[in-house]
Amino acid sequence: MGSNAIVGQSGGPTAVINSTLAGVLQACLARGARNVYGMVHGIEGLLDEKVTVLSDTLGSEMEIELLKRTPASYLGTCRYKLPDLVHGTEVYEKLFRILNKLDIGWFFYIGGNDSMDTISKLSEYGRQIGSDIRFMGVPKTIDNDLVLTDHTPGYGSAAKYIGVVMKEIIRDATAYGNKYVTIVEIMGRNAGWLTAAAALARGEDCEGVNLICLPEIPFHLDRFLAKVETMQKEQNSIVIAVSEGVKLPDGRYVCELSDDAKFVDAFGHRKLTGTARYLSNLVANNLDTLTRSIELSTLQRAAGHLSSRTDITEAYQVGGAAAKAAFEGMTGKMVALRRISNDPYQCTTELVNVADVANLEKKVPVDWINSYRTDMSADFLAYARPLIQAELTPIYINGLSRHIIR
Amino acid sequence: MGSNAIVGQSGGPTAVINSTLAGVLQACLARGARNVYGMVHGIEGLLDEKVTVLSDTLGSEMEIELLKRTPASYLGTCRYKLPDLVHGTEVYEKLFRILNKLDIGWFFYIGGNDSMDTISKLSEYGRQIGSDIRFMGVPKTIDNDLVLTDHTPGYGSAAKYIGVVMKEIIRDATAYGNKYVTIVEIMGRNAGWLTAAAALARGEDCEGVNLICLPEIPFHLDRFLAKVETMQKEQNSIVIAVSEGVKLPDGRYVCELSDDAKFVDAFGHRKLTGTARYLSNLVANNLDTLTRSIELSTLQRAAGHLSSRTDITEAYQVGGAAAKAAFEGMTGKMVALRRISNDPYQCTTELVNVADVANLEKKVPVDWINSYRTDMSADFLAYARPLIQAELTPIYINGLSRHIIR
Repeated sequence: MGSNAIVGQSGGPTAVINSTLAGVLQACLARGARNVYGMVHGIEGLLDEKVTVLSDTLGSEMEIELLKRTPASYLGTCRYKLPDLVHGTEVYEKLFRILNKLDIGWFFYIGGNDSMDTISKLSEYGRQIGSDIRFMGVPKTIDNDLVLTDHTPGYGSAAKYIGVVMKEIIRDATAYGNKYVTIVEIMGRNAGWLTAAAALARGEDCEGVNLICLPEIPFHLDRFLAKVETMQKEQNSIVIAVSEGVKLPDGRYVCELSDDAKFVDAFGHRKLTGTARYLSNLVANNLDTLTRSIELSTLQRAAGHLSSRTDITEAYQVGGAAAKAAFEGMTGKMVALRRISNDPYQCTTELVNVADVANLEKKVPVDWINSYRTDMSADFLAYARPLIQAELTPIYINGLSRHIIR
Repeated sequence: MGSNAIVGQSGGPTAVINSTLAGVLQACLARGARNVYGMVHGIEGLLDEKVTVLSDTLGSEMEIELLKRTPASYLGTCRYKLPDLVHGTEVYEKLFRILNKLDIGWFFYIGGNDSMDTISKLSEYGRQIGSDIRFMGVPKTIDNDLVLTDHTPGYGSAAKYIGVVMKEIIRDATAYGNKYVTIVEIMGRNAGWLTAAAALARGEDCEGVNLICLPEIPFHLDRFLAKVETMQKEQNSIVIAVSEGVKLPDGRYVCELSDDAKFVDAFGHRKLTGTARYLSNLVANNLDTLTRSIELSTLQRAAGHLSSRTDITEAYQVGGAAAKAAFEGMTGKMVALRRISNDPYQCTTELVNVADVANLEKKVPVDWINSYRTDMSADFLAYARPLIQAELTPIYINGLSRHIIR
């Protein structure tokens, strides 16, 4: 049985994925791992034997505190999908040679549903060759679209960021008192969890957003225009939260109507940006109002300066729970969050089969959207509100929030 | 002599303009104003006699604390320019009738160079008709482009926001390790003060931005592409801060090359957005790299959750200094900030003739840009660093920063 642990980060960065890294690292050391290696740029880097010894570089409590407050991926990330086992095992043989060379006993992969597919395949291959390496998946994604877990670490902080900045955007948009339509584009290709978080802005000190458009609901351009026109009869400033992934009834993304549709992102997916800009121009051309479009863009997943303490804490906990399970002999599992109660908010961890999570997407339940399809229901607010509670104060040095880099 | 004071907010919202409102309000009450009126939507609202009694609605210390933390304009703002006196005095006669009806003795206008033009004209007309109303200008703009003042309240908080989020964007952009060019568009039509603040990101925990493009320097598309290509030979992830107002050698704005050029903002100015998107597409079409564009947009002027305590304090102080001067009989002046030293940072207020400030723009000194025209000099950093120091902790209620609304 190997005496070292290894951990990697995969998929899109979040504000709290490094808190999970801290949880894995500290729990593995506490449970007697000799070294804890980090994969540099995930499984892709591991295939090139790019690893770092975390137990050396993150030794002090101060470094751990900074790590919890550093957004994106301390180790670097990747979007690499392992080939299906039926298509040959060369890659797997190579990976296990490297893992055995590093004397790995415990393997942790922090990521979303693609990353869980990696854990699923590695544990399956490990079983076939009788390896005793434990493979554990640790959930992470701002998209909150993993199944079998109440929510995912990363979502709470992104939701808190969206709630806070929507309030600020609404204040700004009402300042002039003139007819103004502000359309805010929020991440979410197929699931509207992040856009739904815009509903959190409403309160006794904020009018709230006037319309929320999720990818779960087909988007009709004509009804959208009619709705905006009607709303603006009531008030001059209209603020709309729209998911980058809203689709026309024929299944095309709205942003495909914009001129940037030809550009692809870092992983060859078509960029889903331009939705808000397209809609803002559509409104400007059809209604008697000024318009503005805002893309929350990378800021919503990288805002370490505005993370949710609840989220940071849970992100750390799932890392620790994964280490505990692996050291107790579990493999092929993912740590999930199970909510015990909303008020007081109580949440615990449990283990689920990673194969049941891999490659699946959890969407926003349609009955959490109001009957007019314009806003979220009280059930959604009761679900989301606890996840944005409390703050982890950034460490400000010389006026800027401090990070730690590899 | 009138026994009431009146204050208005004008021009673009900032994160700290309400702190100036608090300073004017409390100083006027302390000096014996019977009522302090607020103009709802500035001078434009005043012409419709839309006023509120601030001494009634903002009476408690808690309300003042919330006001300091609420971005945009509590009173509402406007973009109304008074006609030149030579073109007739009807508007002025109407305004003074309203001011006398309200028994106004002291008049305060918080804004940028357009707003100082308003104060200049009102005090001139008041002098002509022998009115004893005191007219004071109070500086405000994130653009930092007012002359005769070391800096403007609002700039420090916007600069702090830009420094913090640029660090987060840089962390996010390096996470994948692939060839990636990120272009961040920052406000600034003719002056590059805000874009220059991106230089603050560099430090022992951050690589910093790789290229800074200000409107003060003519923008050559070909040289830009060549520079990006050269930089990417050194490192995969390149992060570029570009002002929305960068202009081609022939004087056209770069964003005029984009397809949104036809759209205008709330005040009929052509929208200067699309610069980063245009450049990002240009790079994608000409170089072998993935690209991304980010517009900081409204967030950079509305981020009350990330304001500079230094800025908030100075914003409050200029309000108080304006009231002091007006009650001592001054009129037709603007409160300016005069820096005494950088280290330790010391700054005081003084009075300047508002007519010398009105309608003028202060640009970034070219010798504060490095000789390669790619970055800011140490002199700029010494100037800007003190302005972003310290934080005013938001009051978080239920997970979101709390505001106060009219």
